[in-house]
Amino acid sequence: MLSKSQISFIKSLHQKKYRKENGLFLVEGIKSIKEFIQSPYRIHTIFYLSEHSGLLPKLPANINLFEVNNVELGKISTLQTPQGFLAVVHLPESKPADLQNLRNQFTIVLDGVQDPGNMGTIIRTADWFGFKNIICSEDCVEVFNPKTVQATMGSLARVNVHYNDLNALLENNQIPVFGALLEGESIYHTDWKKEGLIILGNEGKGISADVMNKITKPVTIPRFGEAESLNVAVSAAIFCSEIARTQN
Amino acid sequence: MLSKSQISFIKSLHQKKYRKENGLFLVEGIKSIKEFIQSPYRIHTIFYLSEHSGLLPKLPANINLFEVNNVELGKISTLQTPQGFLAVVHLPESKPADLQNLRNQFTIVLDGVQDPGNMGTIIRTADWFGFKNIICSEDCVEVFNPKTVQATMGSLARVNVHYNDLNALLENNQIPVFGALLEGESIYHTDWKKEGLIILGNEGKGISADVMNKITKPVTIPRFGEAESLNVAVSAAIFCSEIARTQN
Repeated sequence: MLSKSQISFIKSLHQKKYRKENGLFLVEGIKSIKEFIQSPYRIHTIFYLSEHSGLLPKLPANINLFEVNNVELGKISTLQTPQGFLAVVHLPESKPADLQNLRNQFTIVLDGVQDPGNMGTIIRTADWFGFKNIICSEDCVEVFNPKTVQATMGSLARVNVHYNDLNALLENNQIPVFGALLEGESIYHTDWKKEGLIILGNEGKGISADVMNKITKPVTIPRFGEAESLNVAVSAAIFCSEIARTQN
Repeated sequence: MLSKSQISFIKSLHQKKYRKENGLFLVEGIKSIKEFIQSPYRIHTIFYLSEHSGLLPKLPANINLFEVNNVELGKISTLQTPQGFLAVVHLPESKPADLQNLRNQFTIVLDGVQDPGNMGTIIRTADWFGFKNIICSEDCVEVFNPKTVQATMGSLARVNVHYNDLNALLENNQIPVFGALLEGESIYHTDWKKEGLIILGNEGKGISADVMNKITKPVTIPRFGEAESLNVAVSAAIFCSEIARTQN
């Protein structure tokens, strides 16, 4: 049985402020939780419904297990339809990106992406196409937001997400900086060579002026119809796909 | 000033049942509303904040205009942050697809897509790449759901969305049926020729068994990393992009 104070503590982790304060975040659903168990992330506690206990894998001794009932799970879950399992996971140490470690590969760089679902979808897509790192500007949505964690479908356990001051990062940088823009070379004719940073901007405002100045190769997804723009997660996916298609 | 009964009537249109009953749905934001004004859709009333009235285009006389204040707009809006304009629009006549009219082009076919945001993003992406029609199975989310309308960013005014019994539709069909599957020919090596239906399945369950039997060309987006699957709107976007790349 969960105490009132346990419930209120876990519920506090729905909010960024308390995630940061306590160094913990939430992962729901057994599939995603398994990905985190197999990753360098450290799990604190797994709450589970007794009827689903058979789905639990063998766990290291340092992970606490706690059986809850449907009412309790409903209270601590961030989902309208809780998925039988909720894990409290330690936030990883914050590791800003060092571009020296990102040579000879392609890295997605997000400038001010705000929507948690878009962020999660971008991480999942990056993981599908084998991109190991994503760099976020400091004003991007926090990736440990429950909606983001959910949308990554476990991929957050595999993709390294860094938060950086993009202006500082892109000073004295040797890697080509591709920008996803409405004007530029067609993405279908771009010579990617062997490395690059791919900058994608905020949902409404696009790429900020300072970061725009650092773009060495503006690239565009040709428009054959009439929509004014593409969703940022869709743009990111088409960049990942095109790079994967031409590199592999 | 809006009466209580006006407010409750407009709020009822947040729900599918009352949209259907009254033959009306909601569009918010002046950019999207302008797309509907220029389309075959018929606008019933536009509610607007007086401070934004300068953004209103010249309107045909049959569109009612109604000034509201912030509190009133907050009550009738479906958004957490209302965007100054809300239009009540007539639902179009339902037009199931006739495949004879879809020869020599590519059409997205959605089998059981449930998430309103995914549905909206797919419509927006189709519009970008010049796909004129989307066919939905009858159990797909309703496209006049406010979250879907919002996610289309006005593209719903341009893309024809049909609801069909997919099994009946795909009987005696002459158009190649491509399926987005985890196993199949690489999307990067597919010969699309000049026409096709592109089937994408439900977020969790994929394509239903009956529809699966109608697929003549299984196609897959190659995986270079470790994610188990891609978001359906992301898959749709990569299909649209690849078809556009190779057809244009």
